[in-house]
Amino acid sequence: MEIFQDSFSVSSNRRCQMVDITAEVQSVIQKSGIRNGEATVYTPHTTAAITINENADPDVMHDILLTLEETFPKNRSGYKHNEGNSDSHVKSSLVGCSEHVLISGTRLSLGTWQGIFFCEFDGPRSRKVFVQVRGQ
Amino acid sequence: MEIFQDSFSVSSNRRCQMVDITAEVQSVIQKSGIRNGEATVYTPHTTAAITINENADPDVMHDILLTLEETFPKNRSGYKHNEGNSDSHVKSSLVGCSEHVLISGTRLSLGTWQGIFFCEFDGPRSRKVFVQVRGQ
Amino acid sequence: MEIFQDSFSVSSNRRCQMVDITAEVQSVIQKSGIRNGEATVYTPHTTAAITINENADPDVMHDILLTLEETFPKNRSGYKHNEGNSDSHVKSSLVGCSEHVLISGTRLSLGTWQGIFFCEFDGPRSRKVFVQVRGQ
Repeated sequence: MEIFQDSFSVSSNRRCQMVDITAEVQSVIQKSGIRNGEATVYTPHTTAAITINENADPDVMHDILLTLEETFPKNRSGYKHNEGNSDSHVKSSLVGCSEHVLISGTRLSLGTWQGIFFCEFDGPRSRKVFVQVRGQ
Repeated sequence: MEIFQDSFSVSSNRRCQMVDITAEVQSVIQKSGIRNGEATVYTPHTTAAITINENADPDVMHDILLTLEETFPKNRSGYKHNEGNSDSHVKSSLVGCSEHVLISGTRLSLGTWQGIFFCEFDGPRSRKVFVQVRGQ
Repeated sequence: MEIFQDSFSVSSNRRCQMVDITAEVQSVIQKSGIRNGEATVYTPHTTAAITINENADPDVMHDILLTLEETFPKNRSGYKHNEGNSDSHVKSSLVGCSEHVLISGTRLSLGTWQGIFFCEFDGPRSRKVFVQVRGQ
């Protein structure tokens, strides 16, 4: 069993944005030389997240972000944190700061429509993503 | 350290449904022969999810699905994805397409009331679940 | 590759509360002697959760709990589960009962502002958290 870790940066140009990072994650897996196992995709930020969803129709991303924005609006009576990004912290905890993907024969075992997304909830910014691959 | 992977199918008969898959996951762990470690339960679909919650009282599942349906209704003004299942994609990202369970002495280390559920958000359909077991 | 598992208890004094457990998780990692790999932080309860978010300003926790309380209120017309905690089960599935943290050189690879929190959604109670460390 081997462990390989690498990282890369992701940039956004809007406050809330989903960026497809499937190719970057696949590239780390290829570099690792690991054929079978699991990869953790982790972002070390508290107003961002990682998710897996459809990467065929960009309207899906639009609709997910619209829903999150309307369900968890930027301003809420009673918010105490004075940086104006409490909604971003909420979205980060609900979507989650990591995802796991299985690896079979050096390839990500994703479904036909699945892609891996970095979710920016308080951009635009440059952020980091860690990928740890464990396997044989 | 060994890695063992298997998969099974899950069928639903409603649009939104939680199906208890605890026995199927336990069965993969027994087949693996792995005594201690971790299992990833992963679904390769973008309008479904995996969660861990109470499997004693079926009313809990009813109430979780009711809450998701009322908080994230099927139709929302502004949705652009033309398959009528944008709400299903949202629920998939919020609940998440995988869960992890610890294994001790060939058994799932679940709490007394915990079961593992496949969540269908755009059924009825037949779907796949992957289980990867890693350990000794 | 080694596997080490330990557990600890967390107490709350309100119905909904986020308790910082970063030091307890770090302490399990040090006990394990594992230098590089991953840790699963898992709670075996169906009305609680584990999340990673900001542990610098306590107002962030306040605002996250306020948002969850207003979005998923305790009482909802149509709830059937008769323990009055259906909202707690919903929050548990949305936030999730486990998190994963990467380990580099015996230290948690958390971001500058990240801490690990146990989320109580049906307290006050005493609860258990399992930590499994896998690596070299």
